[in-house]
Amino acid sequence: MTQGLLPTVLFYAIKFFSKHIYSLQVQSSGFNVFVHESSFISGCSMKQAYQTLLLVGQTDEAIDSIIDACNQADLPPIKISTAFNADYASELLSKHDFSLLIVAMSESLPFTQLKQLAEQHGSRPTMAVLSATMADDVLQALRSGACDVFVKAQIDAQAGDFAAAVCKLLHQARLIEKNFQYREALEKSLNELQIDQQAARQIQQNMLPDKTVTIGALTAQYLLIPSLYLSGDFVDVIRVDDSKTLFYLADVSGHGASSALVTVLLKNMTNRLLRNLRRKSSFDILSPVATLHRINTELLDTGLGKHVSMFLGIADDEQKTLTYAVGGHHPMPILTDEKGGRFLEGRGMPVGLFPEPVFDEQTIPLPDCYQITLFSDGVLEMLADNDMEAKEQRLLKAVLETKGGNPERIKQCVLPDIISDAPDDIAIMTICRQ
Amino acid sequence: MTQGLLPTVLFYAIKFFSKHIYSLQVQSSGFNVFVHESSFISGCSMKQAYQTLLLVGQTDEAIDSIIDACNQADLPPIKISTAFNADYASELLSKHDFSLLIVAMSESLPFTQLKQLAEQHGSRPTMAVLSATMADDVLQALRSGACDVFVKAQIDAQAGDFAAAVCKLLHQARLIEKNFQYREALEKSLNELQIDQQAARQIQQNMLPDKTVTIGALTAQYLLIPSLYLSGDFVDVIRVDDSKTLFYLADVSGHGASSALVTVLLKNMTNRLLRNLRRKSSFDILSPVATLHRINTELLDTGLGKHVSMFLGIADDEQKTLTYAVGGHHPMPILTDEKGGRFLEGRGMPVGLFPEPVFDEQTIPLPDCYQITLFSDGVLEMLADNDMEAKEQRLLKAVLETKGGNPERIKQCVLPDIISDAPDDIAIMTICRQ
Repeated sequence: MTQGLLPTVLFYAIKFFSKHIYSLQVQSSGFNVFVHESSFISGCSMKQAYQTLLLVGQTDEAIDSIIDACNQADLPPIKISTAFNADYASELLSKHDFSLLIVAMSESLPFTQLKQLAEQHGSRPTMAVLSATMADDVLQALRSGACDVFVKAQIDAQAGDFAAAVCKLLHQARLIEKNFQYREALEKSLNELQIDQQAARQIQQNMLPDKTVTIGALTAQYLLIPSLYLSGDFVDVIRVDDSKTLFYLADVSGHGASSALVTVLLKNMTNRLLRNLRRKSSFDILSPVATLHRINTELLDTGLGKHVSMFLGIADDEQKTLTYAVGGHHPMPILTDEKGGRFLEGRGMPVGLFPEPVFDEQTIPLPDCYQITLFSDGVLEMLADNDMEAKEQRLLKAVLETKGGNPERIKQCVLPDIISDAPDDIAIMTICRQ
Repeated sequence: MTQGLLPTVLFYAIKFFSKHIYSLQVQSSGFNVFVHESSFISGCSMKQAYQTLLLVGQTDEAIDSIIDACNQADLPPIKISTAFNADYASELLSKHDFSLLIVAMSESLPFTQLKQLAEQHGSRPTMAVLSATMADDVLQALRSGACDVFVKAQIDAQAGDFAAAVCKLLHQARLIEKNFQYREALEKSLNELQIDQQAARQIQQNMLPDKTVTIGALTAQYLLIPSLYLSGDFVDVIRVDDSKTLFYLADVSGHGASSALVTVLLKNMTNRLLRNLRRKSSFDILSPVATLHRINTELLDTGLGKHVSMFLGIADDEQKTLTYAVGGHHPMPILTDEKGGRFLEGRGMPVGLFPEPVFDEQTIPLPDCYQITLFSDGVLEMLADNDMEAKEQRLLKAVLETKGGNPERIKQCVLPDIISDAPDDIAIMTICRQ
């Protein structure tokens, strides 16, 4: 509500006589009405339309002259509470937030008490009213925490100046109050969204495998750092039969909640293909390239408008082979053994982008001991090197230096500074046979 | 950084001599070093560790005595800029945010200029330094926007008091600055999450049918109001063959992003069953109860830890029948025709909660003209009536009063005040044959 919109200035003054609470309604016509208003104490909220003023003075006269001056001016709506001594004022300040504190100084209300009250009042403004025009007193009032000082004679003679000063201080308090409310609203909205995303994150965690999975002689480990709460990077490792283990690392286009929606489909699809295999209704899951084609169809059909780059492999522990297919995935995984390390070869289109994509399937022999290390492209993006060749060499070096397939150690080696808040999701997975 | 942690107070004073910028480094030992520091202008950011003070005075003497007083005190790190006249001070204020403004008053720097500078300085504190102790001048300085006033003689004689006052005002400014930074950080985090969720919302929109779908003689319309960005309520309507139309309204447990993850599965699953039908590999989609069982299996298998309540029906336009199954859905849909309206009968367990659920399938005859109206339980929750019976009667009344199957009009009738920000997702779908 703006000040100019108030045709009649109306404010409430509440006088505290011992334990009885009365409200004094003062209109600019000078017509005064006493109303019992015990709801004030509990209703004193900053979000109400009116602001609150605590007026501290030892005599009715000191207080009345200030109320009269307020009464003659176009003040925003305020509720005035009065206290006849510093102790009672302190008690009120401890219970309520007042927009403005005005202290009428007198012999039995010295500057030490002004200082205590102003400190208790905190960041909102305090005004002191002096009985006489003494420069030292004005300065002492300022030293005691007042940010404006009036002399009583001025209030009567220059009521307009006084009202303008009160207006200015109320406006100053209003800024503090509005700022506080805005912050509260921001915090509430943020909290709401964070709770929402954390719940979704929990759901996504439910879909991911354990951090370390042992299947026969194979050990799969992974590390996943989402750029926000939810990840568009996804991994899984599944025992297909006694000798075959399927694993994949998928990187959904984009990141965050929108990409996380797609990871549900990936999990569901591989689960389903596995069920089909068990009941012998489809053998697609035994072929990485057939699986990519199935995922491609489902993604296009569900109409999410998202595609996925993924590497999907099946390690056969009996045949000692790795069969894999690549769906637009970069960087390629690194295969390390006793002789050293090298990037696997292969290429293919992203999954879920074209109705008739081409994916490459390859089968290579595997030694007795090996490690396959997969990275999402978020890792590449974070590397400072200028060209792709240098970035890939850095990954290769990190894998060779950190034997054992611990993805955390590989990450430490290539991206030591990243803990969270990366611009893109980051995923590293290793499959080891030792 | 707290004041007590500073072993040596160190601050920078920058003097502006025409266009040359020098930095004066003053240590509490009194050792002065001039350093060229042209980076100050662009580097004047509120997020830096030091605060900034603009010192306005006409003479070197006025300025030096203030710097000397600061120099003798334990001030937090500050950078001091000086201006020898109000015009230049105004130019600096227009370019930079200063924590504190100190104006040394003199004959050629009157209160009118103090007032202009203080107004330009805004909500951060202004201090005035007077040459003599005159009560009227002190009061006039306050009226001109200063929130603290010192007399020059006091600065020299009571340097400690002056330093304490500067400290207090810098602290006050720091609160404003920190508050601003905190708000900025909050806004940034919120914005990031909002963008993320809006992108996900777009993905979810892609999966939903058009607001109005016409299939043969049937018209399906729906209204979906998510409680946040993403919805756990989901609807779809699919032409199964020349005579059969499948429609469902699903309400995933919870709401927001976590529930939205599940809606992807629903869309994917019904699409898949439809594909299976077309290639004759499965006829599950022709049976609502078989479809619910399939969804139940997939939900449990994907391990999301979420269940769904849903109503799924197939309207057969040739046989003039409705076959439907209920998976823990409440309220039941309302069937209206020439004779009036009634709730459909049936019950069943929630989908995705139990490994061997029981769902009810019923087939009822349909008249030539009818309307089926489905609600998510968010609608029921929002109704003020005390008992379920009264709530259901309110829904029935709304459907009968708003003929034509426009879900927006039905919502207006039962929940006129809800536009967004409902505590739960709200969905209404109608299937009409006229």
